[in-house]
Amino acid sequence: MDKYNKIIQELIQFRNDRDWEQFHDSKNLALAISLEASELNELFLWKKDDEVENINKDRLKEEIADILSFTFLLAEKHNLDVFDILSEKIKKNALKYPIDKAKGTAKKYNEL
Amino acid sequence: MDKYNKIIQELIQFRNDRDWEQFHDSKNLALAISLEASELNELFLWKKDDEVENINKDRLKEEIADILSFTFLLAEKHNLDVFDILSEKIKKNALKYPIDKAKGTAKKYNEL
Amino acid sequence: MDKYNKIIQELIQFRNDRDWEQFHDSKNLALAISLEASELNELFLWKKDDEVENINKDRLKEEIADILSFTFLLAEKHNLDVFDILSEKIKKNALKYPIDKAKGTAKKYNEL
Amino acid sequence: MDKYNKIIQELIQFRNDRDWEQFHDSKNLALAISLEASELNELFLWKKDDEVENINKDRLKEEIADILSFTFLLAEKHNLDVFDILSEKIKKNALKYPIDKAKGTAKKYNEL
Repeated sequence: MDKYNKIIQELIQFRNDRDWEQFHDSKNLALAISLEASELNELFLWKKDDEVENINKDRLKEEIADILSFTFLLAEKHNLDVFDILSEKIKKNALKYPIDKAKGTAKKYNEL
Repeated sequence: MDKYNKIIQELIQFRNDRDWEQFHDSKNLALAISLEASELNELFLWKKDDEVENINKDRLKEEIADILSFTFLLAEKHNLDVFDILSEKIKKNALKYPIDKAKGTAKKYNEL
Repeated sequence: MDKYNKIIQELIQFRNDRDWEQFHDSKNLALAISLEASELNELFLWKKDDEVENINKDRLKEEIADILSFTFLLAEKHNLDVFDILSEKIKKNALKYPIDKAKGTAKKYNEL
Repeated sequence: MDKYNKIIQELIQFRNDRDWEQFHDSKNLALAISLEASELNELFLWKKDDEVENINKDRLKEEIADILSFTFLLAEKHNLDVFDILSEKIKKNALKYPIDKAKGTAKKYNEL
């Protein structure tokens, strides 16, 4: 079993041991991802450019882990293979952001 | 090379082909994760309990992929192994949410 | 002086007493609004339809106040009259959501 | 009638004309605030310190107006006077952030 499937099994076991599947509808899982993303962003609030890499690494790890936990559980709930959907998205983005137009600019695809 | 490393390599290639690493400081990556999480949540806005699983699956896939792209890039920037930090977080959460106290309740650990 | 201007003056005084204007660039103020909005949303996480009005009223007040504080400060920074921009937005939205098409549906304007 | 009450009346009229009160439970209003806050933050994504005030003013106005619309509607739903709760919060924050400790630092109150 690969690392991804092993982690998914651990996340499901953790959830089932606590009888939490009842709370994990897609809307609440999506909200949980957003709240964890905000906790990640809180590490950077009020920081200027020269301070943004000077953060608490332990909290960084925990917030990234929290975001991934709920995102993996949402993907699993919908039987999505995260690597497949990432591959597909990279292909789509390659069409939205062709290298010759997108190189070196942070503009959105509809402004290129 | 496992699936995770393959995808990370594709994400880095995509970024480097466009010379986008200059924009990817940790603060902006964290903000990007949050904005993608909001796009995911938009799928559920105004929906009641009986409608929350009735969503556009193509958009669901794309938003999950967007969240994962930026989260994986942020982890990679800090040389974090996502499976290691997930394992560690699951262990920590097991202490914060002991089964006998947390079973069947959605309360936060500090209210258990 | 009306209530709005009185509160704005209090918010500015509070900020200036602490020499915090240096941190209040528009990007960080916008991020602060988002983080406070997430704290508001945390009150509702995992709640089902029949529980969503059963929340901690003191925390509700505080989170709404936090969102408004940073939003008012951002508006003030850009010399925006919040009542003027609200009036303008209501007029715009009336065109995007004509009553005969939008009545009773939660669809977005581009799906009406 | 003061400006605030006039705008609240307009927002309620707009909502009622479209029969939208049925969608405006507190959880969905809170989510709407968060999504509008993200649209505001999108104006600043990938921007560095020297670019963060160089933004589209029309979109800034619209996003601030959207955040305020839903926040005012949530406050009104709970019969909250926004100026009262702001005054109370400023007093609370003055205790959490005493001038002599908080002056010139962006630290959170629990780190002062």
